Amino acid sequence: MPIREATADDWPRIWPFWHRIVAAAETYTWDPDTSERAARALWMSPAKRVYVAEDEAGSVVGSAFLTPNYAGPAARVANAGFMVDPERAGRGTGRALAEHVLAEATAAGYRAMVFNAVVETNPAVRLWTSLGFTVLGTVPEAYEHPRHGLVGLHVMHRAL
Amino acid sequence: MPIREATADDWPRIWPFWHRIVAAAETYTWDPDTSERAARALWMSPAKRVYVAEDEAGSVVGSAFLTPNYAGPAARVANAGFMVDPERAGRGTGRALAEHVLAEATAAGYRAMVFNAVVETNPAVRLWTSLGFTVLGTVPEAYEHPRHGLVGLHVMHRAL
Repeated sequence: MPIREATADDWPRIWPFWHRIVAAAETYTWDPDTSERAARALWMSPAKRVYVAEDEAGSVVGSAFLTPNYAGPAARVANAGFMVDPERAGRGTGRALAEHVLAEATAAGYRAMVFNAVVETNPAVRLWTSLGFTVLGTVPEAYEHPRHGLVGLHVMHRAL
Repeated sequence: MPIREATADDWPRIWPFWHRIVAAAETYTWDPDTSERAARALWMSPAKRVYVAEDEAGSVVGSAFLTPNYAGPAARVANAGFMVDPERAGRGTGRALAEHVLAEATAAGYRAMVFNAVVETNPAVRLWTSLGFTVLGTVPEAYEHPRHGLVGLHVMHRAL
C-alpha cells in the first residue's frame, strides 16, 4: 500500500472521513462539531508530519500524523494519530500507516511513541498492542461514549 | 494568601519566574529557550483560566492555569499547571494555588483533573499525592533531566 507525505492538496480527500470519525465521537477526544477549517489546522499543523495511504486507484483511504508529544527536555518522545476511512476499514491500512509512522519516528531520532488518550473501547487498542505498545495507565471514566457510557482513556507507549 | 484571576497586566510579573523555571529544564516539558512572547501565548491562552497568588505586599509569587485536558466527549477532565517563584518557595503557595484551582475546577463542572507529564523527580509529586492525586502510569525515560539523566513522566489523576 503506497504511503507518502501529504500535501495541502490532500486535505479535501482527508476531510470526509476525518469528519465522519470525529463526529461519531467514539474514538477521538476532539469536538464532534469541529469545523473543516479547525480540523485542517489541527491535522495539517506545521508542527506535524502528515502522511496519506492510497489504494491502487490513487484514492486516499487513510491518514496519519507524527509530532513531538512534548517539547524541551522530553522532545524525543513522539505522538501520532491515525484515521482510516471507515468505508475502507479492515484492509490493513491502519497497520500499514502505523508501521510507516513508527519507522519515520525512529529515523527522526525519537526514542519512544506515546498515545495520550486511546478510548479503551476502540478496536485499535488491539492493533497498538500487536505493534508492541503497552498500556501505561488508564484515566478512568474520562470519555462519554455514545453507546458504552463513561469509559477510560489509555495512555499507551512503545519504545523505539 | 490572596488568589485571584490574572489579568493581562499580571504577565510581566509572572514572566521572570516562569522563565527561570522553564529555563532550568527540570520540571516542565517546554522548550527552555521559550521566548517571552511564546510563553505568554502558552500561559495566558484564551482557552485557559489563569490565576495569581499574591503576598501581603501585593507581589505576584505564583501562578496557575486551569483548562480542559481534552475536548469533545472527554471535555469534563481538567488539566492545570502551577508555578511558584523559586525565591518564594516553601511558604505554601503551591498548595494554596492547587486547592484554589481544584475548587474552581469542581465548580466549573469538571469530573477529574489530570497532569499529563509530571517529572518524577519533581518535589511537587509529593504535594499532588497529599492532595489526593495518584500516579496512573509513568512514561519511562522520557525526560532528559540536567542532573538526574533520563527520568520518567508521571500521568497523575484525581477525581473531583
